[in-house]
Amino acid sequence: MTDDFEPLETFLQEAIDEYHEFLSWLGTTVETVESERMVLSVPYDEKLTNRHPHANGTPDIHGGVAATLIDTAGGLVLRTALEDPLSGSIATINLTVNYLRPATGDLRASAEVVRAGSSIGVAEVSVESTTPDDGPKTVATGQGAYRIFREE
Amino acid sequence: MTDDFEPLETFLQEAIDEYHEFLSWLGTTVETVESERMVLSVPYDEKLTNRHPHANGTPDIHGGVAATLIDTAGGLVLRTALEDPLSGSIATINLTVNYLRPATGDLRASAEVVRAGSSIGVAEVSVESTTPDDGPKTVATGQGAYRIFREE
Amino acid sequence: MTDDFEPLETFLQEAIDEYHEFLSWLGTTVETVESERMVLSVPYDEKLTNRHPHANGTPDIHGGVAATLIDTAGGLVLRTALEDPLSGSIATINLTVNYLRPATGDLRASAEVVRAGSSIGVAEVSVESTTPDDGPKTVATGQGAYRIFREE
Amino acid sequence: MTDDFEPLETFLQEAIDEYHEFLSWLGTTVETVESERMVLSVPYDEKLTNRHPHANGTPDIHGGVAATLIDTAGGLVLRTALEDPLSGSIATINLTVNYLRPATGDLRASAEVVRAGSSIGVAEVSVESTTPDDGPKTVATGQGAYRIFREE
Repeated sequence: MTDDFEPLETFLQEAIDEYHEFLSWLGTTVETVESERMVLSVPYDEKLTNRHPHANGTPDIHGGVAATLIDTAGGLVLRTALEDPLSGSIATINLTVNYLRPATGDLRASAEVVRAGSSIGVAEVSVESTTPDDGPKTVATGQGAYRIFREE
Repeated sequence: MTDDFEPLETFLQEAIDEYHEFLSWLGTTVETVESERMVLSVPYDEKLTNRHPHANGTPDIHGGVAATLIDTAGGLVLRTALEDPLSGSIATINLTVNYLRPATGDLRASAEVVRAGSSIGVAEVSVESTTPDDGPKTVATGQGAYRIFREE
Repeated sequence: MTDDFEPLETFLQEAIDEYHEFLSWLGTTVETVESERMVLSVPYDEKLTNRHPHANGTPDIHGGVAATLIDTAGGLVLRTALEDPLSGSIATINLTVNYLRPATGDLRASAEVVRAGSSIGVAEVSVESTTPDDGPKTVATGQGAYRIFREE
Repeated sequence: MTDDFEPLETFLQEAIDEYHEFLSWLGTTVETVESERMVLSVPYDEKLTNRHPHANGTPDIHGGVAATLIDTAGGLVLRTALEDPLSGSIATINLTVNYLRPATGDLRASAEVVRAGSSIGVAEVSVESTTPDDGPKTVATGQGAYRIFREE
């Protein structure tokens, strides 16, 4: 396993920008990549919103955007636990999200490897944002189970 | 409780088109609304895709889009069980999605009320699409738990 | 794939009685086994209860028992989709349960195969029981994702 | 909110021993209670096992026991965030468990409050045990969403 995650960070941001149209439209940025940890962010944008404005005048982001970020960050962070993080592929088996508060600012998803087995991986991800009443807070937390296809 | 869900169908499509920027950008259409059942769809579009093309040349839709549809359809279908489906509000507590196959066509989410209690509701939603090898199939299935705020 | 599930039914009940101490203590019975469907039951017993009695005098069963049944029935039903239902093994990856009502009677878990892929399977299970106010109702519903180890 | 959780610890252990027949039969012990954290344990016992012995001769504990502990610890830990931890009641809405490894020793569930809102709470729980190959490890991790009924 590697200790240098800069190639992975570059690889992931390029993949998002070039191939992953949905993530790229959301404005997904790979913030940091470390051993078994990764942070992805999506900037607040009215195009991501879901509802009438809150009392503070800001409509909140659709829960599907947080779900997308949790799914994505949880899968990508498992790459940091692979022999070669740039090879192989990962597919979501199950995604669970608990919604905690409305999100009215940039989303920041912090993912952590819980276990990376030979064929199955589990990650935990929490998403922070500005909230209408509380300032920056955790707005959603979730776990994902993934199928890991390692290259031989 | 009402038997006529046409006002709700119109109300939801208008709400999506006018207020729900994210759902509206996805192209979300309210297909049918019945007692305790609802179908929403999102047309296939390259902007929703996630990956390199499959052998059949079609890149598949990001799992976050199915998660968004399951979350949305599961919450909206609970309105059909309210005294007045056009009033009150519904917020997602928990969303679970099991991913079954890659989706390479239009998404069609069929939601069903499992229980609509006084303050908590549960819905089950399955999403069909074209798949690279199999033709039309269920590509994802999930359940959502929601907080129901009834208007008194 | 077979059409005759009697050998599987006998095999599972014997396995529960002889090897699965926990399921056997719960009183787990294999009620029916069909193609892609299975029903397991656990009889009501005070030893399974969780709380002060309801108004009707009956304490309700701990949610962990329904979770155990959903986990078990969801895994076992996937065997009906294997080439040889008596071989191979199955391990739970993820279990999700939505609790709907208190259970104050026998539990009856109906499991259905959602998908049985080459290495991953998904099942959906709902549990019925008597409830304090409502008579027989669905008390919990859930989904499980499983790792399938097929014998070659 | 209180800082002294000894009365809650005593209250919970007594409630388990006197009213919660299932938890008491499992041998559930309240290990520690702190602000927003709690540890429950269940000792290894053959009566909780599920399967043929592993190579090391020890059969593993049924996943339903870990699910029961996660459900229970996640609900009880929310009491530490209540004005009066000994009043009110808590009911599970949704439980999600990701299974990581077979458990062949005592189970120890560490629960943490993620959010305790006015009517909904979310907790995260991970369960450690001995495993057949690895020594003490996390064997399961999960999240629960709960309905909080506060006493006025």
